[in-house]
Amino acid sequence: MTEKLPDATIVRLCSIYQLLCELEKRGVKKISSTELGKQAGVMAHTIRKDINFFGEIGNTGSGYEVTRLKSHLALNLGFTAEKRACVVGLGRLGCAIIQTPVLAGGEFTIVAGFDSNVNKLETIKAPIELFPSYDIAEVVGKMAIELGIIAVSPASAQEVADRLVDGGVRGIVNFAPTVIAVKKDGVFVRQVDLGNELRILSAMLIMDKYVCKTESSF
Amino acid sequence: MTEKLPDATIVRLCSIYQLLCELEKRGVKKISSTELGKQAGVMAHTIRKDINFFGEIGNTGSGYEVTRLKSHLALNLGFTAEKRACVVGLGRLGCAIIQTPVLAGGEFTIVAGFDSNVNKLETIKAPIELFPSYDIAEVVGKMAIELGIIAVSPASAQEVADRLVDGGVRGIVNFAPTVIAVKKDGVFVRQVDLGNELRILSAMLIMDKYVCKTESSF
Repeated sequence: MTEKLPDATIVRLCSIYQLLCELEKRGVKKISSTELGKQAGVMAHTIRKDINFFGEIGNTGSGYEVTRLKSHLALNLGFTAEKRACVVGLGRLGCAIIQTPVLAGGEFTIVAGFDSNVNKLETIKAPIELFPSYDIAEVVGKMAIELGIIAVSPASAQEVADRLVDGGVRGIVNFAPTVIAVKKDGVFVRQVDLGNELRILSAMLIMDKYVCKTESSF
Repeated sequence: MTEKLPDATIVRLCSIYQLLCELEKRGVKKISSTELGKQAGVMAHTIRKDINFFGEIGNTGSGYEVTRLKSHLALNLGFTAEKRACVVGLGRLGCAIIQTPVLAGGEFTIVAGFDSNVNKLETIKAPIELFPSYDIAEVVGKMAIELGIIAVSPASAQEVADRLVDGGVRGIVNFAPTVIAVKKDGVFVRQVDLGNELRILSAMLIMDKYVCKTESSF
C-alpha cells in the first residue's frame, strides 16, 4: 500500500514554513517545537511528526535552527523552483492581485490576466499581459502556466476552471464563493471564501464553549 | 479529560456545510457519505465521523437528506444567529469586501469599515458606516461587532489585530500576508494569504509524485 502525505499535514507544513520566514526576518535563530507549535496553533508533537516526514532534522532538545529548517522544508516541499500563475476575472479583487505580480518572496510570478470583457482589458493598467477569457486554454499552454487564480462570479467559476485545466493548469485558488469540481486527476483546488472563513471562526467560537467528554486515557 | 473538537474537524464540517448549501440550491435531495466525501475531498468514514460528532443523524445506507443535514449542522455550528463583522483597511481588497456587506447567505453582516487615511474615508462610497482606524476599539464595542477582517498592509496588521481584540472581537480573518498573534485566549484567527495558498498547491503537486511506502495493513 502506498500512502500520500495527508493534505492537513501539507497545510500545516506550509504554515510552519510561513512562520519560519517571519522568524528569520525578525532575526530569530533558534526555536523549539513547543514555541513553533504555539505560534502556529498546533501541538508540539504534531509539529515534530510533520517535520520528520522528510527525515530527521536536528532538534536535540535545544530547538530547530530557523534558517536550516526553512531551507529543509523549501527543498522538500518544492518551493525552490519559480512557478507561473495567472488570474481570471479582473474586477476589484483580480486587479488587486495583479498589482503585486510577484508573490511569496518571489516563488510565484503572475504572468497573465484574463477577463471576459474585452473592452475592459484596454482600460486596465497592469504590469502583466492581459487576454480575453476565451484565450485561457491557449495562453496557459503557451506560457507554461501551472497555477490559476479564479476571481470571477460564482456563475462563471466552473467554466473558467475547466478552461484552466484544459490549458494544463495543475493547481487552482478559487476565490469565487462556490464549489468547483475538476474533472482531471492530479489537479488541486484551494477554496478561499470569506463567508466560509467567517463560518469557521463562528464555529470555533461555539466549540470553544462546547467540549465533549471522552474517557481519560491517562 | 475534556477534549475540544479539533480545528481540522471544524474546517471540514464547514466545507461540508458549504457543499450542502450548493447541493440544496441545485435541487439535490439525498447524498451518500461517499459522494459527499468525493465532492469535499475527504474520506467517507471521516465525513461520517465528523457529522456524528453532534449525535447520530439518519444515514441508513440510503444517504443523508441534504436539507436536514444542512439544518443539523447549522444549528450545532451556530450558524443560525446573525453575526456582525467589520473590515479594517479600505484599499482595493477592503473596498471589494464592503461592497457586498451581507455574506454567506445572510449569516454575516459587515456593519463598519475602517481606514487610517481619514481623507480617503470621505471619497469611498459604501453601503455601511466608515470610521477612522483610531476609533476601532470604541466602535467595535459600541456596535457589538464579533468578527474582524484585516485588509491592511503587513506592517500594520498586528496593531490592527490588537485594537480589534481590545474592542471585543473574538474572530479575525487576516488577509495581510503576515502572521499575527492574539494576546487573549478564546480569540481565533484565520490566515488567508494568496501566497500561502499557492505554496500549498505546489506542495500538493510535489507530494502527488512523492508517495511514502507504508506496510500494507490489508
